[in-house]
Amino acid sequence: MMRRSFQVAARLGHCRTLLGAPCTLPRLNPASAFGSSTDALVSRFCKKKTDLKDYALPNASWCPDMLSMYQEFLEKTKASGWIKMPSFKSNREHIQGLKLPLGSAVTSDENDWRIFTRCIQVEGQGYEYVIFFHPSQKKSVCLFQPGPYLEGAPGFAHGGSLAAMMDEAFSKTAYLAGEGLLTQSLNIRFKNLIPVGSLAVLNIEVEKIEDRKIYISCVTQSRDQQTVYAKSSAVFLQLQLEEESSQ
Amino acid sequence: MMRRSFQVAARLGHCRTLLGAPCTLPRLNPASAFGSSTDALVSRFCKKKTDLKDYALPNASWCPDMLSMYQEFLEKTKASGWIKMPSFKSNREHIQGLKLPLGSAVTSDENDWRIFTRCIQVEGQGYEYVIFFHPSQKKSVCLFQPGPYLEGAPGFAHGGSLAAMMDEAFSKTAYLAGEGLLTQSLNIRFKNLIPVGSLAVLNIEVEKIEDRKIYISCVTQSRDQQTVYAKSSAVFLQLQLEEESSQ
Repeated sequence: MMRRSFQVAARLGHCRTLLGAPCTLPRLNPASAFGSSTDALVSRFCKKKTDLKDYALPNASWCPDMLSMYQEFLEKTKASGWIKMPSFKSNREHIQGLKLPLGSAVTSDENDWRIFTRCIQVEGQGYEYVIFFHPSQKKSVCLFQPGPYLEGAPGFAHGGSLAAMMDEAFSKTAYLAGEGLLTQSLNIRFKNLIPVGSLAVLNIEVEKIEDRKIYISCVTQSRDQQTVYAKSSAVFLQLQLEEESSQ
Repeated sequence: MMRRSFQVAARLGHCRTLLGAPCTLPRLNPASAFGSSTDALVSRFCKKKTDLKDYALPNASWCPDMLSMYQEFLEKTKASGWIKMPSFKSNREHIQGLKLPLGSAVTSDENDWRIFTRCIQVEGQGYEYVIFFHPSQKKSVCLFQPGPYLEGAPGFAHGGSLAAMMDEAFSKTAYLAGEGLLTQSLNIRFKNLIPVGSLAVLNIEVEKIEDRKIYISCVTQSRDQQTVYAKSSAVFLQLQLEEESSQ
Protein backbone atom coordinates (compact mmCIF):
# COMPACT_ATOMS: atom_id res chain seq x y z
CA MET A 1 0.00 0.00 0.00
CA MET A 2 2.75 2.39 0.89
CA ARG A 3 4.62 1.96 -2.37
CA ARG A 4 1.40 2.43 -4.29
CA SER A 5 0.61 5.55 -2.29
CA PHE A 6 3.91 7.07 -3.23
CA GLN A 7 3.22 6.46 -6.88
CA VAL A 8 -0.15 8.11 -6.55
CA ALA A 9 1.42 10.95 -4.65
CA ALA A 10 3.76 11.59 -7.48
CA ARG A 11 0.89 11.69 -9.90
CA LEU A 12 -1.32 13.87 -7.73
CA GLY A 13 1.69 16.00 -7.14
CA HIS A 14 2.05 16.34 -10.87
CA CYS A 15 -1.59 17.31 -11.07
CA ARG A 16 -1.14 19.93 -8.34
CA THR A 17 1.95 21.28 -9.98
CA LEU A 18 0.02 21.65 -13.15
CA LEU A 19 -2.72 23.59 -11.44
CA GLY A 20 -0.77 26.75 -12.00
CA ALA A 21 -1.19 26.16 -15.71
CA PRO A 22 -4.94 25.73 -16.26
CA CYS A 23 -4.64 24.38 -19.80
CA THR A 24 -3.08 21.19 -18.48
CA LEU A 25 -5.78 20.40 -15.91
CA PRO A 26 -7.90 17.33 -16.70
CA ARG A 27 -11.07 18.63 -18.39
CA LEU A 28 -14.25 18.32 -16.39
CA ASN A 29 -16.51 15.70 -17.90
CA PRO A 30 -20.15 16.80 -17.77
CA ALA A 31 -21.25 13.17 -18.11
CA SER A 32 -19.44 11.85 -15.06
CA ALA A 33 -20.32 8.51 -13.51
CA PHE A 34 -23.00 9.96 -11.26
CA GLY A 35 -23.75 13.16 -13.08
CA SER A 36 -22.41 16.45 -11.86
CA SER A 37 -25.72 17.77 -10.52
CA THR A 38 -25.91 18.59 -6.86
CA ASP A 39 -28.81 16.16 -6.47
CA ALA A 40 -26.76 13.29 -7.83
CA LEU A 41 -23.83 14.10 -5.56
CA VAL A 42 -26.05 14.43 -2.52
CA SER A 43 -27.83 11.15 -3.17
CA ARG A 44 -24.48 9.38 -3.38
CA PHE A 45 -23.00 10.98 -0.27
CA CYS A 46 -26.09 10.98 1.91
CA LYS A 47 -27.41 7.47 1.30
CA LYS A 48 -30.65 6.80 3.10
CA LYS A 49 -30.01 3.07 3.28
CA THR A 50 -26.62 1.80 4.28
CA ASP A 51 -25.13 -0.65 6.74
CA LEU A 52 -22.31 1.73 7.53
CA LYS A 53 -22.31 3.30 10.98
CA ASP A 54 -23.22 6.97 10.91
CA TYR A 55 -21.18 8.83 13.53
CA ALA A 56 -23.13 12.05 13.10
CA LEU A 57 -25.86 11.00 15.49
CA PRO A 58 -26.55 12.18 19.04
CA ASN A 59 -24.90 10.35 21.92
CA ALA A 60 -24.75 10.79 25.69
CA SER A 61 -21.78 13.14 25.45
CA TRP A 62 -23.57 15.84 23.48
CA CYS A 63 -24.14 19.04 25.43
CA PRO A 64 -27.68 20.47 25.60
CA ASP A 65 -26.89 23.19 23.02
CA MET A 66 -25.58 20.60 20.56
CA LEU A 67 -28.61 18.37 21.06
CA SER A 68 -31.21 21.07 20.71
CA MET A 69 -29.58 22.67 17.67
CA TYR A 70 -29.34 19.21 16.10
CA GLN A 71 -33.07 18.73 16.64
CA GLU A 72 -33.75 22.17 15.23
CA PHE A 73 -31.89 21.37 12.00
CA LEU A 74 -33.42 17.91 11.83
CA GLU A 75 -36.81 19.65 11.67
CA LYS A 76 -35.47 21.79 8.84
CA THR A 77 -34.61 18.67 6.84
CA LYS A 78 -38.35 17.95 6.68
CA ALA A 79 -39.44 21.24 5.18
CA SER A 80 -36.66 23.71 4.44
CA GLY A 81 -34.45 21.75 2.06
CA TRP A 82 -31.66 21.01 4.54
CA ILE A 83 -29.96 17.62 4.40
CA LYS A 84 -28.23 15.87 7.27
CA MET A 85 -24.95 14.46 6.04
CA PRO A 86 -23.98 11.04 7.33
CA SER A 87 -20.42 10.68 8.57
CA PHE A 88 -18.66 7.35 8.14
CA LYS A 89 -15.45 6.16 9.76
CA SER A 90 -13.44 6.62 6.59
CA ASN A 91 -13.64 8.65 3.40
CA ARG A 92 -13.19 5.30 1.65
CA GLU A 93 -16.74 4.49 2.72
CA HIS A 94 -18.07 7.74 1.31
CA ILE A 95 -16.50 7.16 -2.08
CA GLN A 96 -16.89 3.40 -2.43
CA GLY A 97 -16.58 2.34 -6.03
CA LEU A 98 -15.02 5.61 -7.06
CA LYS A 99 -11.45 6.55 -7.70
CA LEU A 100 -9.52 9.73 -7.34
CA PRO A 101 -8.42 11.53 -10.49
CA LEU A 102 -5.34 10.13 -12.19
CA GLY A 103 -5.91 6.52 -11.31
CA SER A 104 -5.96 6.27 -7.51
CA ALA A 105 -8.63 3.65 -6.84
CA VAL A 106 -9.75 2.91 -3.29
CA THR A 107 -8.54 -0.53 -2.34
CA SER A 108 -9.19 -2.48 0.82
CA ASP A 109 -6.32 -3.68 3.00
CA GLU A 110 -5.73 -4.61 6.61
CA ASN A 111 -5.07 -1.10 7.86
CA ASP A 112 -7.66 0.52 10.09
CA TRP A 113 -8.09 3.65 7.96
CA ARG A 114 -9.98 6.46 9.60
CA ILE A 115 -10.92 9.88 8.41
CA PHE A 116 -8.98 12.23 10.67
CA THR A 117 -12.04 13.85 12.24
CA ARG A 118 -13.33 10.39 13.26
CA CYS A 119 -9.99 9.15 14.53
CA ILE A 120 -11.15 8.96 18.16
CA GLN A 121 -14.08 6.63 18.62
CA VAL A 122 -14.71 7.07 22.33
CA GLU A 123 -17.87 9.13 22.60
CA GLY A 124 -17.28 12.68 23.71
CA GLN A 125 -13.49 12.43 24.00
CA GLY A 126 -12.57 13.63 20.54
CA TYR A 127 -14.60 15.08 17.70
CA GLU A 128 -18.37 15.22 18.00
CA TYR A 129 -19.89 16.86 14.96
CA VAL A 130 -22.67 16.80 12.46
CA ILE A 131 -22.94 18.68 9.17
CA PHE A 132 -26.17 19.88 7.59
CA PHE A 133 -26.07 20.99 3.95
CA HIS A 134 -28.48 23.08 1.90
CA PRO A 135 -28.08 22.13 -1.79
CA SER A 136 -29.82 25.08 -3.45
CA GLN A 137 -28.32 27.69 -1.12
CA LYS A 138 -24.94 25.95 -1.27
CA LYS A 139 -24.28 26.41 2.41
CA SER A 140 -23.62 24.19 5.41
CA VAL A 141 -23.88 24.33 9.15
CA CYS A 142 -21.50 22.20 11.17
CA LEU A 143 -22.22 21.61 14.86
CA PHE A 144 -18.89 20.90 16.55
CA GLN A 145 -18.22 19.86 20.15
CA PRO A 146 -14.54 19.30 20.95
CA GLY A 147 -13.66 16.76 23.64
CA PRO A 148 -10.72 16.64 26.09
CA TYR A 149 -8.48 14.82 23.57
CA LEU A 150 -8.62 17.91 21.37
CA GLU A 151 -7.09 20.22 23.96
CA GLY A 152 -4.63 23.02 23.24
CA ALA A 153 -4.55 25.64 25.99
CA PRO A 154 -5.84 24.00 29.18
CA GLY A 155 -9.61 23.65 28.97
CA PHE A 156 -9.85 24.83 25.37
CA ALA A 157 -9.87 23.23 21.94
CA HIS A 158 -6.56 23.23 20.08
CA GLY A 159 -6.56 25.73 17.22
CA GLY A 160 -5.47 22.87 14.98
CA SER A 161 -8.55 20.83 15.89
CA LEU A 162 -10.76 23.67 14.71
CA ALA A 163 -8.65 24.05 11.56
CA ALA A 164 -9.14 20.34 10.82
CA MET A 165 -12.87 20.57 11.54
CA MET A 166 -13.07 23.45 9.08
CA ASP A 167 -11.11 21.61 6.40
CA GLU A 168 -13.34 18.57 6.76
CA ALA A 169 -16.65 20.47 6.77
CA PHE A 170 -15.43 22.64 3.88
CA SER A 171 -14.37 19.64 1.83
CA LYS A 172 -17.74 17.91 2.18
CA THR A 173 -19.51 21.16 1.32
CA ALA A 174 -17.23 21.83 -1.65
CA TYR A 175 -17.79 18.34 -2.98
CA LEU A 176 -21.56 18.47 -2.71
CA ALA A 177 -21.79 22.02 -4.00
CA GLY A 178 -19.64 21.42 -7.05
CA GLU A 179 -17.24 18.49 -6.86
CA GLY A 180 -14.59 20.44 -5.04
CA LEU A 181 -12.10 17.81 -4.03
CA LEU A 182 -8.72 19.14 -2.98
CA THR A 183 -8.01 21.99 -0.58
CA GLN A 184 -5.84 24.57 -2.30
CA SER A 185 -5.73 27.10 0.53
CA LEU A 186 -7.07 27.57 4.03
CA ASN A 187 -6.94 30.87 5.90
CA ILE A 188 -8.07 31.25 9.49
CA ARG A 189 -8.28 34.20 11.84
CA PHE A 190 -8.80 33.00 15.39
CA LYS A 191 -10.83 35.32 17.61
CA ASN A 192 -11.68 33.39 20.78
CA LEU A 193 -10.89 30.02 22.29
CA ILE A 194 -13.58 27.31 22.24
CA PRO A 195 -14.14 25.72 25.67
CA VAL A 196 -13.83 21.93 25.60
CA GLY A 197 -17.27 20.31 25.83
CA SER A 198 -19.17 23.27 24.43
CA LEU A 199 -20.82 23.82 21.06
CA ALA A 200 -19.22 25.80 18.25
CA VAL A 201 -21.31 26.44 15.14
CA LEU A 202 -19.56 26.68 11.78
CA ASN A 203 -21.64 28.68 9.30
CA ILE A 204 -20.22 27.78 5.91
CA GLU A 205 -21.07 29.43 2.58
CA VAL A 206 -19.93 28.78 -0.96
CA GLU A 207 -19.11 32.27 -2.16
CA LYS A 208 -18.54 31.46 -5.83
CA ILE A 209 -17.44 28.76 -8.24
CA GLU A 210 -15.09 30.13 -10.85
CA ASP A 211 -12.29 28.76 -13.04
CA ARG A 212 -12.70 25.29 -11.55
CA LYS A 213 -12.26 26.65 -8.05
CA ILE A 214 -14.77 26.78 -5.21
CA TYR A 215 -14.47 29.71 -2.84
CA ILE A 216 -15.76 29.09 0.68
CA SER A 217 -16.12 31.30 3.73
CA CYS A 218 -17.01 30.47 7.31
CA VAL A 219 -17.85 32.17 10.57
CA THR A 220 -17.49 29.94 13.64
CA GLN A 221 -19.39 31.17 16.67
CA SER A 222 -21.32 30.27 19.78
CA ARG A 223 -24.94 29.28 19.40
CA ASP A 224 -26.15 32.66 20.63
CA GLN A 225 -23.82 34.34 18.11
CA GLN A 226 -22.37 36.48 20.88
CA THR A 227 -18.89 34.98 20.64
CA VAL A 228 -17.07 34.65 17.32
CA TYR A 229 -14.45 31.90 17.58
CA ALA A 230 -12.93 32.29 14.13
CA LYS A 231 -13.40 33.58 10.62
CA SER A 232 -11.98 31.57 7.77
CA SER A 233 -11.92 31.03 4.04
CA ALA A 234 -10.74 28.33 1.70
CA VAL A 235 -10.37 27.50 -1.96
CA PHE A 236 -11.05 24.00 -3.28
CA LEU A 237 -10.19 22.60 -6.69
CA GLN A 238 -12.87 20.94 -8.79
CA LEU A 239 -11.88 17.41 -9.77
CA GLN A 240 -14.40 14.71 -10.53
CA LEU A 241 -14.34 11.28 -8.97
CA GLU A 242 -14.85 8.57 -11.55
CA GLU A 243 -16.59 5.23 -11.30
CA GLU A 244 -14.04 2.52 -10.84
CA SER A 245 -15.46 0.25 -13.51
CA SER A 246 -15.46 2.99 -16.13
CA GLN A 247 -11.77 2.60 -16.83
CA MET B 1 -14.47 22.26 35.13
CA MET B 2 -16.83 23.11 32.32
CA ARG B 3 -18.38 26.05 34.11
CA ARG B 4 -14.94 27.36 34.97
CA SER B 5 -13.84 26.97 31.38
CA PHE B 6 -16.70 29.10 30.18
CA GLN B 7 -15.75 31.84 32.57
CA VAL B 8 -12.18 31.74 31.36
CA ALA B 9 -13.38 31.72 27.77
CA ALA B 10 -15.26 34.89 28.37
CA ARG B 11 -12.17 36.51 29.80
CA LEU B 12 -9.81 35.28 27.12
CA GLY B 13 -12.45 36.27 24.63
CA HIS B 14 -12.35 39.74 26.12
CA CYS B 15 -8.58 39.70 25.72
CA ARG B 16 -8.86 38.62 22.10
CA THR B 17 -11.50 41.21 21.38
CA LEU B 18 -9.22 43.82 22.78
CA LEU B 19 -6.35 42.77 20.58
CA GLY B 20 -7.59 45.12 17.91
CA ALA B 21 -6.89 47.92 20.36
CA PRO B 22 -3.26 47.45 21.43
CA CYS B 23 -3.45 49.93 24.30
CA THR B 24 -5.75 47.62 26.21
CA LEU B 25 -3.55 44.52 26.00
CA PRO B 26 -1.99 43.41 29.29
CA ARG B 27 1.52 44.88 29.37
CA LEU B 28 4.36 42.44 29.02
CA ASN B 29 6.22 42.05 32.26
CA PRO B 30 9.99 41.78 31.64
CA ALA B 31 10.43 40.14 35.03
CA SER B 32 8.12 37.20 34.46
CA ALA B 33 8.22 34.12 36.64
CA PHE B 34 10.88 32.40 34.61
CA GLY B 35 12.43 35.34 32.87
CA SER B 36 11.66 36.14 29.28
CA SER B 37 14.98 35.02 27.87
CA THR B 38 14.96 32.21 25.35
CA ASP B 39 17.30 30.19 27.56
CA ALA B 40 14.90 30.36 30.49
CA LEU B 41 11.95 29.35 28.33
CA VAL B 42 13.86 26.48 26.77
CA SER B 43 15.04 25.14 30.11
CA ARG B 44 11.47 25.12 31.37
CA PHE B 45 9.99 23.47 28.27
CA CYS B 46 12.77 21.04 27.54
CA LYS B 47 13.48 19.64 30.99
CA LYS B 48 16.31 17.17 31.03
CA LYS B 49 14.99 15.38 34.08
CA THR B 50 11.34 14.54 34.33
CA ASP B 51 9.14 11.55 35.05
CA LEU B 52 6.75 12.52 32.29
CA LYS B 53 6.69 10.30 29.23
CA ASP B 54 8.26 11.93 26.20
CA TYR B 55 6.31 10.93 23.08
CA ALA B 56 8.88 12.48 20.73
CA LEU B 57 11.09 9.41 20.77
CA PRO B 58 11.60 6.78 18.05
CA ASN B 59 9.33 3.75 18.02
CA ALA B 60 8.86 0.75 15.75
CA SER B 61 6.41 2.62 13.51
CA TRP B 62 8.89 5.26 12.37
CA CYS B 63 9.82 4.98 8.71
CA PRO B 64 13.53 4.87 7.76
CA ASP B 65 13.52 8.54 6.62
CA MET B 66 12.04 9.65 9.95
CA LEU B 67 14.52 7.59 11.95
CA SER B 68 17.60 8.70 10.08
CA MET B 69 16.64 12.37 10.03
CA TYR B 70 15.94 12.14 13.77
CA GLN B 71 19.44 10.73 14.31
CA GLU B 72 20.89 13.46 12.12
CA PHE B 73 19.28 16.20 14.22
CA LEU B 74 20.14 14.42 17.45
CA GLU B 75 23.78 14.76 16.40
CA LYS B 76 23.18 18.47 15.81
CA THR B 77 22.00 18.85 19.41
CA LYS B 78 25.53 17.97 20.51
CA ALA B 79 27.36 20.61 18.53
CA SER B 80 25.17 22.94 16.49
CA GLY B 81 22.92 24.47 19.11
CA TRP B 82 19.79 22.52 18.21
CA ILE B 83 17.52 21.34 21.03
CA LYS B 84 15.20 18.35 20.91
CA MET B 85 11.85 19.35 22.38
CA PRO B 86 10.13 16.79 24.58
CA SER B 87 6.46 16.22 23.90
CA PHE B 88 4.17 15.33 26.76
CA LYS B 89 0.64 13.97 26.65
CA SER B 90 -0.88 17.28 27.61
CA ASN B 91 0.02 20.96 27.47
CA ARG B 92 -0.85 20.95 31.17
CA GLU B 93 2.35 18.98 31.73
CA HIS B 94 4.39 21.50 29.77
CA ILE B 95 3.12 24.42 31.78
CA GLN B 96 2.83 22.87 35.23
CA GLY B 97 2.68 25.53 37.91
CA LEU B 98 1.90 28.26 35.42
CA LYS B 99 -1.32 29.91 34.54
CA LEU B 100 -2.65 31.47 31.39
CA PRO B 101 -3.06 35.23 31.30
CA LEU B 102 -6.16 36.57 32.95
CA GLY B 103 -6.42 34.02 35.68
CA SER B 104 -6.78 30.62 34.03
CA ALA B 105 -4.72 28.32 36.26
CA VAL B 106 -4.11 24.71 35.27
CA THR B 107 -6.01 22.46 37.63
CA SER B 108 -6.11 18.71 37.80
CA ASP B 109 -9.36 16.81 37.46
CA GLU B 110 -10.54 13.37 36.42
CA ASN B 111 -10.64 14.10 32.70
CA ASP B 112 -8.05 12.46 30.48
CA TRP B 113 -6.83 15.69 28.90
CA ARG B 114 -4.63 15.28 25.87
CA ILE B 115 -2.94 17.74 23.62
CA PHE B 116 -4.65 17.27 20.26
CA THR B 117 -1.53 16.12 18.42
CA ARG B 118 -1.02 13.37 21.02
CA CYS B 119 -4.67 12.31 21.09
CA ILE B 120 -3.95 8.89 19.58
CA GLN B 121 -1.59 6.83 21.68
CA VAL B 122 -1.28 3.73 19.51
CA GLU B 123 2.18 3.89 17.95
CA GLY B 124 2.12 4.73 14.27
CA GLN B 125 -1.65 5.06 13.93
CA GLY B 126 -1.95 8.78 14.53
CA TYR B 127 0.61 11.54 14.91
CA GLU B 128 4.28 10.65 15.05
CA TYR B 129 6.38 13.76 15.33
CA VAL B 130 9.37 15.37 16.93
CA ILE B 131 10.34 19.03 16.98
CA PHE B 132 13.90 20.38 17.08
CA PHE B 133 14.40 24.05 17.93
CA HIS B 134 17.36 26.35 17.42
CA PRO B 135 17.20 29.16 20.01
CA SER B 136 19.61 31.64 18.48
CA GLN B 137 18.39 31.16 14.92
CA LYS B 138 14.79 31.08 16.14
CA LYS B 139 13.81 28.28 13.83
CA SER B 140 12.43 24.76 14.17
CA VAL B 141 12.30 21.57 12.21
CA CYS B 142 9.36 19.24 12.79
CA LEU B 143 9.57 15.66 11.54
CA PHE B 144 6.00 14.50 10.96
CA GLN B 145 4.78 11.05 9.99
CA PRO B 146 0.98 10.76 9.65
CA GLY B 147 -0.65 7.40 10.41
CA PRO B 148 -3.81 5.80 8.98
CA TYR B 149 -6.06 7.51 11.55
CA LEU B 150 -5.11 10.84 10.00
CA GLU B 151 -6.45 10.01 6.56
CA GLY B 152 -8.24 12.40 4.23
CA ALA B 153 -8.15 11.29 0.60
CA PRO B 154 -7.53 7.52 0.55
CA GLY B 155 -3.89 6.83 1.39
CA PHE B 156 -3.04 10.45 2.19
CA ALA B 157 -2.95 12.64 5.28
CA HIS B 158 -6.00 14.85 5.83
CA GLY B 159 -5.22 18.50 5.12
CA GLY B 160 -6.56 19.27 8.57
CA SER B 161 -4.04 16.95 10.21
CA LEU B 162 -1.22 18.91 8.60
CA ALA B 163 -2.88 22.18 9.61
CA ALA B 164 -3.01 20.97 13.21
CA MET B 165 0.60 19.76 13.09
CA MET B 166 1.59 23.21 11.85
CA ASP B 167 -0.37 25.00 14.54
CA GLU B 168 1.20 22.84 17.23
CA ALA B 169 4.78 23.13 15.94
CA PHE B 170 4.32 26.86 15.37
CA SER B 171 2.94 27.40 18.86
CA LYS B 172 5.86 25.64 20.54
CA THR B 173 8.30 27.60 18.37
CA ALA B 174 6.52 30.89 19.01
CA TYR B 175 6.56 30.28 22.75
CA LEU B 176 10.24 29.41 22.91
CA ALA B 177 11.26 32.16 20.52
CA GLY B 178 9.38 34.90 22.32
CA GLU B 179 6.48 33.79 24.49
CA GLY B 180 4.05 33.64 21.60
CA LEU B 181 1.02 32.00 23.10
CA LEU B 182 -2.15 32.35 21.08
CA THR B 183 -2.56 31.77 17.35
CA GLN B 184 -4.02 34.86 15.75
CA SER B 185 -3.96 33.66 12.15
CA LEU B 186 -2.95 30.61 10.16
CA ASN B 187 -2.67 30.61 6.37
CA ILE B 188 -1.87 27.48 4.38
CA ARG B 189 -1.38 26.84 0.68
CA PHE B 190 -1.46 23.10 0.01
CA LYS B 191 0.70 21.93 -2.88
CA ASN B 192 0.83 18.13 -2.72
CA LEU B 193 -0.72 15.37 -0.64
CA ILE B 194 1.38 13.63 2.01
CA PRO B 195 1.27 9.82 1.73
CA VAL B 196 0.28 8.14 5.00
CA GLY B 197 3.30 6.52 6.66
CA SER B 198 5.87 8.78 5.01
CA LEU B 199 7.94 11.64 6.40
CA ALA B 200 7.04 15.29 5.94
CA VAL B 201 9.54 17.89 7.15
CA LEU B 202 8.25 21.22 8.44
CA ASN B 203 10.91 23.91 8.17
CA ILE B 204 9.73 26.67 10.48
CA GLU B 205 11.22 30.15 10.79
CA VAL B 206 10.38 33.10 12.99
CA GLU B 207 10.35 35.96 10.48
CA LYS B 208 10.03 38.82 12.94
CA ILE B 209 8.73 39.83 16.35
CA GLU B 210 6.97 43.14 16.23
CA ASP B 211 4.22 44.89 18.17
CA ARG B 212 3.79 41.90 20.47
CA LYS B 213 3.25 39.62 17.50
CA ILE B 214 5.40 36.77 16.28
CA TYR B 215 5.41 36.16 12.53
CA ILE B 216 6.17 32.61 11.47
CA SER B 217 6.61 30.97 8.08
CA CYS B 218 6.94 27.33 7.09
CA VAL B 219 7.71 25.18 4.10
CA THR B 220 6.63 21.55 4.46
CA GLN B 221 8.38 19.18 2.10
CA SER B 222 9.76 15.71 1.53
CA ARG B 223 13.14 14.89 2.98
CA ASP B 224 14.83 15.21 -0.42
CA GLN B 225 13.14 18.61 -0.87
CA GLN B 226 11.83 17.50 -4.25
CA THR B 227 8.18 17.67 -3.21
CA VAL B 228 6.69 20.69 -1.47
CA TYR B 229 3.60 19.65 0.48
CA ALA B 230 2.55 23.08 1.69
CA LYS B 231 3.63 26.63 2.39
CA SER B 232 2.19 28.38 5.38
CA SER B 233 2.42 31.35 7.68
CA ALA B 234 1.03 32.31 11.05
CA VAL B 235 0.91 35.14 13.55
CA PHE B 236 1.07 34.49 17.29
CA LEU B 237 0.34 36.90 20.10
CA GLN B 238 2.87 37.42 22.86
CA LEU B 239 1.35 36.77 26.27
CA GLN B 240 3.41 35.66 29.24
CA LEU B 241 2.52 32.71 31.40
CA GLU B 242 2.76 33.54 35.07
CA GLU B 243 3.80 31.42 38.03
CA GLU B 244 0.72 30.21 39.82
CA SER B 245 1.95 31.16 43.27
CA SER B 246 2.77 34.70 42.23
CA GLN B 247 -0.85 35.81 42.44
